[in-house]
Amino acid sequence: MARNVGFLLLSFLSFFIGLSVADWNILDHKEKHKLGISLKNYCESWRINVELNNIRGFDVVPEECVDFIGKYMTSTQYNIDSERAIEECSVYLSSCFTMNGDGKDAWIFDIDDTLLSTVPYYKKHRFGGEQLNLSSLEEWMKEKKGTALEHSRNLFKEIKGRGLKIFLISSRGEHLRDATVDNLVKVGYYGWTGLILRGSEDSCKTVQQYKAEQRKRLIENGYRIWGIVGDQWSSLQGLPTVKRTFKLPNSLYYVV
Amino acid sequence: MARNVGFLLLSFLSFFIGLSVADWNILDHKEKHKLGISLKNYCESWRINVELNNIRGFDVVPEECVDFIGKYMTSTQYNIDSERAIEECSVYLSSCFTMNGDGKDAWIFDIDDTLLSTVPYYKKHRFGGEQLNLSSLEEWMKEKKGTALEHSRNLFKEIKGRGLKIFLISSRGEHLRDATVDNLVKVGYYGWTGLILRGSEDSCKTVQQYKAEQRKRLIENGYRIWGIVGDQWSSLQGLPTVKRTFKLPNSLYYVV
Repeated sequence: MARNVGFLLLSFLSFFIGLSVADWNILDHKEKHKLGISLKNYCESWRINVELNNIRGFDVVPEECVDFIGKYMTSTQYNIDSERAIEECSVYLSSCFTMNGDGKDAWIFDIDDTLLSTVPYYKKHRFGGEQLNLSSLEEWMKEKKGTALEHSRNLFKEIKGRGLKIFLISSRGEHLRDATVDNLVKVGYYGWTGLILRGSEDSCKTVQQYKAEQRKRLIENGYRIWGIVGDQWSSLQGLPTVKRTFKLPNSLYYVV
Repeated sequence: MARNVGFLLLSFLSFFIGLSVADWNILDHKEKHKLGISLKNYCESWRINVELNNIRGFDVVPEECVDFIGKYMTSTQYNIDSERAIEECSVYLSSCFTMNGDGKDAWIFDIDDTLLSTVPYYKKHRFGGEQLNLSSLEEWMKEKKGTALEHSRNLFKEIKGRGLKIFLISSRGEHLRDATVDNLVKVGYYGWTGLILRGSEDSCKTVQQYKAEQRKRLIENGYRIWGIVGDQWSSLQGLPTVKRTFKLPNSLYYVV
């Protein structure tokens, strides 16, 4: 009985919150409510469509989904989802990778939310629910407080152990180089071959363009790129393509 | 109290099922259990990694996740997730599409699990938990029992209304043409410009190769492809690319 009342209250609340918020308002509420669609359903569908790259270029997490996204990005499920993605890299390497011996076998990693978690920052900034303040984020980066994504760190070690050269291609700017190196080393990442950050010449390019150009440069230098792991589609898409790409979940922000 | 007992039973059951099944066995159970990871977490991470295209080319849905996937693919959540993907097509068209007037603006749709649902078939075949029997699936297709995905049907009409030419590119074989046309028309799809099915010359190609070749042919014929909607990455990836792609959820099977 208490559960039923709770459920009714929750439904009513979802409906009420829904009616008060812009994006959620676009939907045909009466119909949704009749079908038993809750705010949770709505926010989950937003999240999955971000992961599918159907929803692109959003500035902020929709107001009404901030709690939902915050909960997911700090959940066991997020941790397991990321772990599974990383496990698939290992499976792929175990079955497909053969070293050439010329030192040109390579792997690319993103940094933020691939090697280092920015969740501690976004926890204090409404989990992507407020417009990004780049200076504030960069101040935080300079404090070198990014924590390691544990599964990524294991993969990093495994890949190094297999003899692949590791390149980190990040949308962080060159002025963050020292802080980035310190942060990476502090939490257990070391032994990469290249740390590529955005220079002033890249400032007018989209991140996807900039990252694709860096891949092109590596390939022109003879590297065979076996894979990329990143949390943004802009790290994985565009030309040239590589043998395999792996997408980690991240619905806090979208990098174009 | 009753809820707590239920939860404990469920956790125990998940753990027990886990111990008895091959794939789930690979994981380090003691650690997972200690961390409170359930079969539900595990299957959800399998599903999301299929959608992210990290898990590729699977033959069957893992035995232990059949119930979970079956539940999702017949759920309100699946319906809302698909609806949101389709809504994003409309948003994109409303803001980006301008008709040229030369009759060469085009849109591509997949058929199965994009326009027509095969869920009724997979319901009787353990939701992808058993190896695909192609003859049996094709027998079912010949019965023209595919139901319309409602949101896709609305988009189909909208796109036709906007004056775009619609091309359906499917991995179904030519021998299914009559049944496919009948099924499509019966549930409300009509007025397409081309229905492209696999001929004998395509039988040794991957579906991705075949679909990419068909896109190339359309582009060579002067068509500007504004978007593709499909439930498989093989419908969306490869060259040539198009302006936008939209991925519908589907974790019942994987087409290479």
